[in-house]
Amino acid sequence: MTEGLRIEEVERPHIERSDGVIVEVEGAGWCQTDNHIIEGMWEQYVPQPLPMTLGHENAGTVVETGDEVNLVSEGDAVICHPVQTCGTCRPCRQGETMYCENQSFNGLTTDGGFADYLKTTERAVIPLPGDVEPIDIAPHADAGITAYHAAKKAVQGLSPGDHAVIIGIGGLGHIGVQCVDAMSAAQITAVDLKDSALDLAETSGADHVVNPTKGNVREFIDDVTDGEGAREVMDFVGADVTTEYAPDITAAGGNHHIIGYGGHIHEPAQALVNGEFSYVGNIVGQYTELQELVALVEQGDVELHTSRYGLEEVNEVAEKLEHREIDGRAVIIPWGYVTILEIVTGTK
Amino acid sequence: MTEGLRIEEVERPHIERSDGVIVEVEGAGWCQTDNHIIEGMWEQYVPQPLPMTLGHENAGTVVETGDEVNLVSEGDAVICHPVQTCGTCRPCRQGETMYCENQSFNGLTTDGGFADYLKTTERAVIPLPGDVEPIDIAPHADAGITAYHAAKKAVQGLSPGDHAVIIGIGGLGHIGVQCVDAMSAAQITAVDLKDSALDLAETSGADHVVNPTKGNVREFIDDVTDGEGAREVMDFVGADVTTEYAPDITAAGGNHHIIGYGGHIHEPAQALVNGEFSYVGNIVGQYTELQELVALVEQGDVELHTSRYGLEEVNEVAEKLEHREIDGRAVIIPWGYVTILEIVTGTK
Amino acid sequence: MTEGLRIEEVERPHIERSDGVIVEVEGAGWCQTDNHIIEGMWEQYVPQPLPMTLGHENAGTVVETGDEVNLVSEGDAVICHPVQTCGTCRPCRQGETMYCENQSFNGLTTDGGFADYLKTTERAVIPLPGDVEPIDIAPHADAGITAYHAAKKAVQGLSPGDHAVIIGIGGLGHIGVQCVDAMSAAQITAVDLKDSALDLAETSGADHVVNPTKGNVREFIDDVTDGEGAREVMDFVGADVTTEYAPDITAAGGNHHIIGYGGHIHEPAQALVNGEFSYVGNIVGQYTELQELVALVEQGDVELHTSRYGLEEVNEVAEKLEHREIDGRAVIIPWGYVTILEIVTGTK
Amino acid sequence: MTEGLRIEEVERPHIERSDGVIVEVEGAGWCQTDNHIIEGMWEQYVPQPLPMTLGHENAGTVVETGDEVNLVSEGDAVICHPVQTCGTCRPCRQGETMYCENQSFNGLTTDGGFADYLKTTERAVIPLPGDVEPIDIAPHADAGITAYHAAKKAVQGLSPGDHAVIIGIGGLGHIGVQCVDAMSAAQITAVDLKDSALDLAETSGADHVVNPTKGNVREFIDDVTDGEGAREVMDFVGADVTTEYAPDITAAGGNHHIIGYGGHIHEPAQALVNGEFSYVGNIVGQYTELQELVALVEQGDVELHTSRYGLEEVNEVAEKLEHREIDGRAVIIPWGYVTILEIVTGTK
Repeated sequence: MTEGLRIEEVERPHIERSDGVIVEVEGAGWCQTDNHIIEGMWEQYVPQPLPMTLGHENAGTVVETGDEVNLVSEGDAVICHPVQTCGTCRPCRQGETMYCENQSFNGLTTDGGFADYLKTTERAVIPLPGDVEPIDIAPHADAGITAYHAAKKAVQGLSPGDHAVIIGIGGLGHIGVQCVDAMSAAQITAVDLKDSALDLAETSGADHVVNPTKGNVREFIDDVTDGEGAREVMDFVGADVTTEYAPDITAAGGNHHIIGYGGHIHEPAQALVNGEFSYVGNIVGQYTELQELVALVEQGDVELHTSRYGLEEVNEVAEKLEHREIDGRAVIIPWGYVTILEIVTGTK
Repeated sequence: MTEGLRIEEVERPHIERSDGVIVEVEGAGWCQTDNHIIEGMWEQYVPQPLPMTLGHENAGTVVETGDEVNLVSEGDAVICHPVQTCGTCRPCRQGETMYCENQSFNGLTTDGGFADYLKTTERAVIPLPGDVEPIDIAPHADAGITAYHAAKKAVQGLSPGDHAVIIGIGGLGHIGVQCVDAMSAAQITAVDLKDSALDLAETSGADHVVNPTKGNVREFIDDVTDGEGAREVMDFVGADVTTEYAPDITAAGGNHHIIGYGGHIHEPAQALVNGEFSYVGNIVGQYTELQELVALVEQGDVELHTSRYGLEEVNEVAEKLEHREIDGRAVIIPWGYVTILEIVTGTK
Repeated sequence: MTEGLRIEEVERPHIERSDGVIVEVEGAGWCQTDNHIIEGMWEQYVPQPLPMTLGHENAGTVVETGDEVNLVSEGDAVICHPVQTCGTCRPCRQGETMYCENQSFNGLTTDGGFADYLKTTERAVIPLPGDVEPIDIAPHADAGITAYHAAKKAVQGLSPGDHAVIIGIGGLGHIGVQCVDAMSAAQITAVDLKDSALDLAETSGADHVVNPTKGNVREFIDDVTDGEGAREVMDFVGADVTTEYAPDITAAGGNHHIIGYGGHIHEPAQALVNGEFSYVGNIVGQYTELQELVALVEQGDVELHTSRYGLEEVNEVAEKLEHREIDGRAVIIPWGYVTILEIVTGTK
Repeated sequence: MTEGLRIEEVERPHIERSDGVIVEVEGAGWCQTDNHIIEGMWEQYVPQPLPMTLGHENAGTVVETGDEVNLVSEGDAVICHPVQTCGTCRPCRQGETMYCENQSFNGLTTDGGFADYLKTTERAVIPLPGDVEPIDIAPHADAGITAYHAAKKAVQGLSPGDHAVIIGIGGLGHIGVQCVDAMSAAQITAVDLKDSALDLAETSGADHVVNPTKGNVREFIDDVTDGEGAREVMDFVGADVTTEYAPDITAAGGNHHIIGYGGHIHEPAQALVNGEFSYVGNIVGQYTELQELVALVEQGDVELHTSRYGLEEVNEVAEKLEHREIDGRAVIIPWGYVTILEIVTGTK
């Protein structure tokens, strides 16, 4: 996989529609999904024209706009929602921009932002408040809103005194902890295999932490919730071993949110009937949720834990993430390069 | 399994608490869960003191009340919610009577109503409107409210023009179709292996029907929903083959409700992420939901399709249900017998 | 007021933006709001450039489209949502198209459809199913979705057995009754001063009717709801005499929806505290709600009661409506005229 | 009004039902509603058998229990929900304990807790965590849960970046600020006539404060919300002057919560239509909401600002509150007295 991506020189993209926007990229987060794309895990779910520039967590400065664009002007700092939407299909009309019937997903189904320039549209950019730096906020474009999106669903079920369990305190999970903490008065228990991640969880707002290599998670949750279980479990790992916690640690009527992926759910239907819990799917958050997350960042409620890398280090970053050697989120800085990346998976 | 239950003579139960109620049973529905109890499927989930009288779908006439009971008096016709609740734990206070921390479940964890008399409490009986016969409404005490409970959750996500798919049109499913039809303006597609069940679905309000032995369910749903998928899928079967429909037939953001059980869910976490659908667990409905279902029955919105049997035929009924030879719901009439049933599974 | 509107010849509008759409109008509903506009009641709420063509309930055929329009083509039959929205402000992104920060409202803040041609946009037109005639559906563009919008909010609070009261069974109210009937299993009581309106209510799905000139509404509701009151009251009149029903006929925790207007709310704050009821404001429904209403019409769940008039009869129609001499909804047919209407209120 | 209450000696109450509980009162909050009761404002809304002991905000120690009580035992510290509920009517079953059809309200419709002993029931007491003192938490029994109840409704509408306005930072309002702050990431603007109250608001979590005697509230809110208005307004005053803020400061689709009372709502129905805002009634919170508030107190998220008085000072306290001379909440300590209070309004 170290040979997954290639650095090449490409032409600068140009505006073709009245609502087009070209952004000069200042920061581009590296995501577990980038690894999954390279592994070919998305081929069966979405069309992927290759070669393609990866990168779906971008922020930067607007350098060109189509002639009917009103929301932003040249020189504006923006964060880029990864999904370019049509604005006229029914899901777009309902605010469910992630279900847009005519969408392109940066770095997944169209060229993304591990590059100097990203071509996107008025409906996919959010102007940044004056004191927020693009490079600091870039990973929120996917890691951030995905965590926020799941957290927003979870807090609907969390009254004061209720318990949330957050599994996997990495690039997404540490944002998830901060979001639940900011938007609810629930008790938060963080679960991770690494003690450094649990330390990050505690500074992010977790009330309790448990490391499955050292303690029994089921007993810990049972104990801390007085036998009731957690009303909301946010699973940022999505491995077999984490999805099977659900029947044991979820309260009656509660939810086990699937955010991370890679493993399977394998449970008897009867378990869901007996405990009346649900496995809740979660995709990237909506455009308006990214607006809300920007507000949280501006208010100081959510802080990203990042490390920065040059564009030439992408394959190295991919490998480090695979081996859980990155704390928080890796951000790629493409500035100064006139190159893009291309997927060259073994099968192509 | 034909030897699953034994008919014996037992003593009439007596009031022990101020809120106790003794009901003379006039009808007792036979449920797939009774078969599952006999098979031992519930042993790992709940305590079951044996021997025990089965029967959790009961209606009849009040014959004795504790000295602080106000809701009903001797001679009142009532339907019995299967769960006897404490009324003081937090779930009871929230109306989530199914999550009562001190509950007894008729015919599952305490003696039920395949008997002349059932001992229950003021918090578990609902007076019937004048023109509703106990024997006609008995199966609603479990089959009915379970279907209603899931339908009530499902219709929250169903706007006019949206699609619901209802899988398994048996004792519960045919009530589910009627509930969704009465409470929403959604399009309903019924799925069943038996054409007679699909006929029942159509008279119950289904707009479309499909038999998997004759047509491709995935293609049918794709076609009827214009490629969008169904917002709500109600799975009254809960077999491997039905839970795996979810990624293909559920719309983005939709729900696959697990009501029937017996099989497993086995899906990659990524499927739930990509389609953002959920597997939603469903248990028996709350007391207040049974009140609402009684209102539907009184209004003529829900009609039970039943067949009647004597108490001596219980084992025969169990076998018929196993072989899908019962249309709608079987109701046992214990009247005139001074006997109860006892679980005698092979392992005891 | 009979001299409220003037018929004039004007130029055909032209496409100016990439998302523009010109519709040849085939039917245009006359609304109580048109009377209120002529009376000057909207001057303090919104900017109104005069002279202006009135008319916000339009349907017809697309005759020209901007060069980036994908949703419709020349020749398509469409219904026109009255609000032209930007698609990029936060409310638009949330699906709350009625709160668009850059909106134009046909016939209220920009030229409407009592004319041969209406200039609107891709975001404001909905293609009609093949068997729906524009002239039959036109009033749904405002009367319909306003009633539907309020009904959709109301049914969220209506479980089977609950009661809804619908006050004023005119152009909107008779649609409201049908919507509540189609989307819930609640008991519906209709209130109107005219027996012919109550007859229309009954054929629309009302379970009970009461005429305040003949019976005591408060006692009637108290009786029919067993003293509990109505969970949802939909007030399509909005007069002093109807808003003051709320404390007496609304159940604890219930809602009195204000849809019609003209009068005032005047109640002690304590009344809202004691009964915990709310006065809920209601504006025109969203674009997606109009899609849902079109689905209801296509399914046969909602039928409009209309009468047709020529463009030259507009002032006469206004006066008839004022004197409650129109049953259901008046539809103006502008076809064949090359004229528009202009507000000439006394004060201009 | 200084002669409103009389101190007398009465007999200690005794258990009469199996679920009865006698509490020795350690603290009893004085509420604006006590003043309103003395003024006779509740006579038309509820039956009030006189003479009656006032006091509905009580906490203390259980000294006697009925023979079927399981939740508490002699010696347990408890807070008393002011409403004694039946547990068997439909509202109780739904968790809507405030709508109990067979309720008694301490100090309003039955004897309350400005006395050594309060007779209540198992369904109306909540055991306190070990480190919470009854006297410190007593006012939460009404002031607290009323504020919490309204805050819980309000935060449902508050996404990060949205604005809440809280009017009146007294005994309830300063709890309201803390609850909204703990349960949401919204921006909070506090409004009060007293600068000391605004100081309390700021230490309670308000982001902005405005004093109507010094600044224009409408302009301030317009400015701080960028012209959008506040999504949720919590009106703890309920005077004419505060209810009429609604059309000007509430965002489209927002809510003006009526919690305080004394004045009127007087608005044209058209205002609610144009802005689609609602006047939302608010009563005392449910039993389970008091549990949640106790959790907030235990977690340190909500802190009461109180001052303590002896039982003999009640009339003085009433007068001070009338003249806004009490900051936070006054708590009466009946300990050591064998007396109760009696309403002797002028009209009796």
